[in-house]
Amino acid sequence: MNTVQLTKLDKTVSGWMHDMQTHVMKRLTQKMTIETKSNHRDLVTNVDRETEQFYVEAIRTFDPQAKILGEEGLGDRVTDMDGHVWFVDPIDGTMNFVKQHAEFASMLAYYEDGQPVMAWIMDVANNQIVHGGPEYGVFLDEQRLEKPNLESLADGLIVLSGARLLYEQYGFPEIAKAALGYRVYGSAGISYLRLLTGRAVGYISYMKPWDFAAGVLLSQALGLTNGTIDGSTLNVLQSGVVLTANEKAFDDIIQIQQK
Amino acid sequence: MNTVQLTKLDKTVSGWMHDMQTHVMKRLTQKMTIETKSNHRDLVTNVDRETEQFYVEAIRTFDPQAKILGEEGLGDRVTDMDGHVWFVDPIDGTMNFVKQHAEFASMLAYYEDGQPVMAWIMDVANNQIVHGGPEYGVFLDEQRLEKPNLESLADGLIVLSGARLLYEQYGFPEIAKAALGYRVYGSAGISYLRLLTGRAVGYISYMKPWDFAAGVLLSQALGLTNGTIDGSTLNVLQSGVVLTANEKAFDDIIQIQQK
Repeated sequence: MNTVQLTKLDKTVSGWMHDMQTHVMKRLTQKMTIETKSNHRDLVTNVDRETEQFYVEAIRTFDPQAKILGEEGLGDRVTDMDGHVWFVDPIDGTMNFVKQHAEFASMLAYYEDGQPVMAWIMDVANNQIVHGGPEYGVFLDEQRLEKPNLESLADGLIVLSGARLLYEQYGFPEIAKAALGYRVYGSAGISYLRLLTGRAVGYISYMKPWDFAAGVLLSQALGLTNGTIDGSTLNVLQSGVVLTANEKAFDDIIQIQQK
Repeated sequence: MNTVQLTKLDKTVSGWMHDMQTHVMKRLTQKMTIETKSNHRDLVTNVDRETEQFYVEAIRTFDPQAKILGEEGLGDRVTDMDGHVWFVDPIDGTMNFVKQHAEFASMLAYYEDGQPVMAWIMDVANNQIVHGGPEYGVFLDEQRLEKPNLESLADGLIVLSGARLLYEQYGFPEIAKAALGYRVYGSAGISYLRLLTGRAVGYISYMKPWDFAAGVLLSQALGLTNGTIDGSTLNVLQSGVVLTANEKAFDDIIQIQQK
């Protein structure tokens, strides 16, 4: 894509997200239907579903070739990265959405023949969006972001998934102990936003494709390093423990893993 | 104090905090001096010290009888609650202040002959302040707050201190497992703000007097319950593991402690 096409893509999708933002914040003042999915902590609301439906319809109109992988299953069954592939996480951090009415995100990512093109992560309650890609640059609203925070793990904050830490999986306690400090926010999108804006040196969590597709795309575009915790190749269609960090903190964490 | 006196007190102290806010946010764009205190994670900056100095001078001018207990030691050695006692935490969550430039608080609390009168917690980066007391009511900026969130621990979010959880102290892992979810924010003031505005059912942390004096005062004024984790009486001059929660979540947590 050339710059004109990328700009058009960004403006179009950012427009959808701002429309979604107005709608979702209004929905927070109304009664919601809350259901559970795989377990009692895995929440979904009518707002998650209607937001995904809104995105799916917008994408299909804009890009008739789209293959859409959405959290709530209203898109397609995507088995390969050929062609135009869109990742949709309508409301990320649904527990924060329901309980806090804040610190939840909405995320979209677009890949073309397996190549990352552009992604969008919105902090919905704060109406802030990080958007961009490898050719386009990465922006917080209108402000261009630079490669963030090159501190080591020992000198920086790590953001991680609370459940993995609590149940002592994947070496999370050792990673947290080696860091200057750790934070638990309960939303992948919000965690990626902290990392992308230089407020943390890394983020690590067990995630599904829609949780990390936008975050790894934007992180890579900013010069951060992405990988899985066991050193296997990151596959954007496959769930796993995904680590995103600056190269120094990334190495620090991999070394802890290999002990 | 009558309403006129309380209003004057609130307006005066809120004014100090807004002046402090402007100054501190400007300081974040300049070079800071960062030192460590008790250990390499216990940070203090020149901004912590100059903010405490600012508050101490303002308090002494406004209230010549003041006894001031401040985190950075620029006030008095306070050994009892007789008379006019002020608690000062100039920058709470100094690690967030230094590393994130966000999610840090500034806190003041005023007690008269041991009775809670008024307290102020500001989310400095967001320029929001929760202020009030038992006679006056509690406000988020101009909006009056109601008694928040009566959900049980199993139905709500608990905010807790990351270090205590990581080192498995005081039953923190069991409390986190029993909650619907937990969050770690790295600042007592920010954690209290989440609790006071209904975004969590409880907050628990090992704290020093300036960390919790404002939070327990405002929580009590809103009808929340405060205590120590071992059931001993809360003493605002004594460090300890302080639990603040709605009465249902408070009981849930005490029962976990007693198992």
